[in-house]
Amino acid sequence: MQSLIEIRRRIEAGSLTPEAAIRASLEAVAAGDDAIRAFVHLDPTAGPGREGPLQGIAVGVKDIVDVAGQPTGMGSPIYDGWRPFADAPVTSLLRRAGATPVGKTSTTAFAYIDPTPTRNPRNPAHTPGGSSSGSAAAVAAGMVPLAIGTQTGGSVIRPASFCGVAAIKPSYRMLPAIGVKCFSWSLDTVGLFAAGVADVAYGLAALTGRGELLPQGEPGAPRIGVVVQDFAGEADPAILQAVEQAAAAAEAEGARVTRVNLPPIFAAAFAAHATIQDFEAAQALAFEQDRHRDALPPLLRGLLDAAAGIEPGAYDAARSTANRARGALRDVFLDVDVLLTVSAPGPAPETLASTGTSAFNRLWTLMGTPCVNVPGLADARGLPLGVQVVAPFGADALALSAARFVESALRDA
Amino acid sequence: MQSLIEIRRRIEAGSLTPEAAIRASLEAVAAGDDAIRAFVHLDPTAGPGREGPLQGIAVGVKDIVDVAGQPTGMGSPIYDGWRPFADAPVTSLLRRAGATPVGKTSTTAFAYIDPTPTRNPRNPAHTPGGSSSGSAAAVAAGMVPLAIGTQTGGSVIRPASFCGVAAIKPSYRMLPAIGVKCFSWSLDTVGLFAAGVADVAYGLAALTGRGELLPQGEPGAPRIGVVVQDFAGEADPAILQAVEQAAAAAEAEGARVTRVNLPPIFAAAFAAHATIQDFEAAQALAFEQDRHRDALPPLLRGLLDAAAGIEPGAYDAARSTANRARGALRDVFLDVDVLLTVSAPGPAPETLASTGTSAFNRLWTLMGTPCVNVPGLADARGLPLGVQVVAPFGADALALSAARFVESALRDA
Repeated sequence: MQSLIEIRRRIEAGSLTPEAAIRASLEAVAAGDDAIRAFVHLDPTAGPGREGPLQGIAVGVKDIVDVAGQPTGMGSPIYDGWRPFADAPVTSLLRRAGATPVGKTSTTAFAYIDPTPTRNPRNPAHTPGGSSSGSAAAVAAGMVPLAIGTQTGGSVIRPASFCGVAAIKPSYRMLPAIGVKCFSWSLDTVGLFAAGVADVAYGLAALTGRGELLPQGEPGAPRIGVVVQDFAGEADPAILQAVEQAAAAAEAEGARVTRVNLPPIFAAAFAAHATIQDFEAAQALAFEQDRHRDALPPLLRGLLDAAAGIEPGAYDAARSTANRARGALRDVFLDVDVLLTVSAPGPAPETLASTGTSAFNRLWTLMGTPCVNVPGLADARGLPLGVQVVAPFGADALALSAARFVESALRDA
Repeated sequence: MQSLIEIRRRIEAGSLTPEAAIRASLEAVAAGDDAIRAFVHLDPTAGPGREGPLQGIAVGVKDIVDVAGQPTGMGSPIYDGWRPFADAPVTSLLRRAGATPVGKTSTTAFAYIDPTPTRNPRNPAHTPGGSSSGSAAAVAAGMVPLAIGTQTGGSVIRPASFCGVAAIKPSYRMLPAIGVKCFSWSLDTVGLFAAGVADVAYGLAALTGRGELLPQGEPGAPRIGVVVQDFAGEADPAILQAVEQAAAAAEAEGARVTRVNLPPIFAAAFAAHATIQDFEAAQALAFEQDRHRDALPPLLRGLLDAAAGIEPGAYDAARSTANRARGALRDVFLDVDVLLTVSAPGPAPETLASTGTSAFNRLWTLMGTPCVNVPGLADARGLPLGVQVVAPFGADALALSAARFVESALRDA
């Protein structure tokens, strides 16, 4: 993989020019993407952006995020050839930091669960996950050092886990979700993929101007609460074992590790996620449903048909449940700095017909908390197994620092 | 003015066809808009929509809200001739209810405070207010029975007050703000203008499918807390007197009226509004600022230049203050059903060079509470003076019922 921080180190040392760095990324895409199909549009003429902390960094942008001068296809023939007028704000933040959006990455249609043809670079017979399929795969395949994705259920953390890359779903609205095709305005969250946790942290600090996010020195040992999300269904023993391995490695390096049982309000909030998401999707995608229903892929069409029956009262009750759970989560974090749990129910399934399930991510998307996928573990077949670090809302620096601690402990173990 | 409910009554009684109702609105625009300039685009071929509670209702849509098949100009030459691909969800909700979006109404550029050429139908030497200038004026001039606006500071309630029409800024995100040009994602709220409070209530019920909003029977007498917003500056004695008149009229018909002093956290929240709005605007309008700065109008350009200096920490602190104030507001509503306060600092100023100030609306936009402008009072020159009914978040039915009570009490007084 291309490490963002390593590229920047070489640029700052004068051993690599921003031009050459962008060119290397473009060449990697050209060489590898016939097999992976991470990109749906590439600007082969792209050069470096303005001077800034991300100059020389080629970025893949999920194809529901507007980039001026490039098409935004939404993963759907309905938007074939559509070109937005403006950059999405997160695209502008990339350009302000000097980054180069080199192209658009494959997304499931409107970021739902109908799969894309993208393959998992770790094993092309397996799904890369979704909906940010191309962004995760592009980083995992070493094509670009940074990619933009979005998560409404589990569309950043799950594909990062499946593809073995680091990723952050930051606190709700830390990165603006404007100019990003909406699925659910209460849930849609823009996130980042990069090779390692420090790379992700550097990227988020550069985009937001939040210096406290920068990876500096050795991270302190966090108080970690290990969480099993029973309400989300069964996880594969291999990935549960990965969480135990990560906890043990962190404990060996000085972290305090405890077990946390989430009270029943969180199971209720987990269930509320679907009501909120689907009620909002029925409005957010009303135009597509009313005018282009036959062109919608089957799973999304079915969802929107069913969602039309959700009553406003059920939506209000679900939002109320979510608010109570957010209050209860503050109490959970009184005794631990971060939570540690699986990033997905298991390794990437051996299929291109499904992107897997977001069940182990939904609660955290609804809570609006920062989540970081820590790569580094794999099953017996070499398929990545991600573990997820969750911190309180607004504590993105803590999430990243604890995730770096776990990542480093796993490397040392 | 055209009463939405009256038009619907006639359609349901068979004495008016939906075709004739739409035609009458189009003719009213054609006859009156050269003087008022409420519309920036009109579809003269528009006919009635599908069967539904708003069939036969012509709607003016603020020109930052996407309507497929019509241009979206954002009140700025930067977007001259730009045509969006899709309807905004609120436009789809209009169509689903049978309404006809007949055209786009004048907006200040990107819904900030640089004025439009729109005139106040009550007196063309006065501003109609902003930023939803055309939507308020189109209803006040009797051109359409319903119009869509948005409020980030006071852009629904203030122009409604200036033009003497009813309006609601519903609870935050009751109407989706997707497909609406963003100024501040934490604040932007889609609202409605109509002739009277019952018309507004009928319209909102039809768009949201929330039957509890429908105006049915005589509203019950509410417990009203009269609030003076000292932190917002001085209000004109005439509009303060209007609030007293409204309170006395309501009391005479059985309402319990008390005085409410807001604790200091609300003055802090009032100040936090600007920090949140401006920090988010600097990102939401980053593309326009980075690529088209010279084409921005002077007040907006100045704001965006200054907003670039707001630190993330100041933004986080402002959001924290807003959250504390939302908590404190729940206590304020323990003793009263609704608050009653001015809708604007006074009548519409005698100028077209300013849209007036949103100071008396900002706190409520930040709180996310439903606000209803009750028309019916005027100063000695006949200029409207609006009073504002504010209810707890989610209690839109209560806000509308209490506003109908006040409106009716004023008519009886």
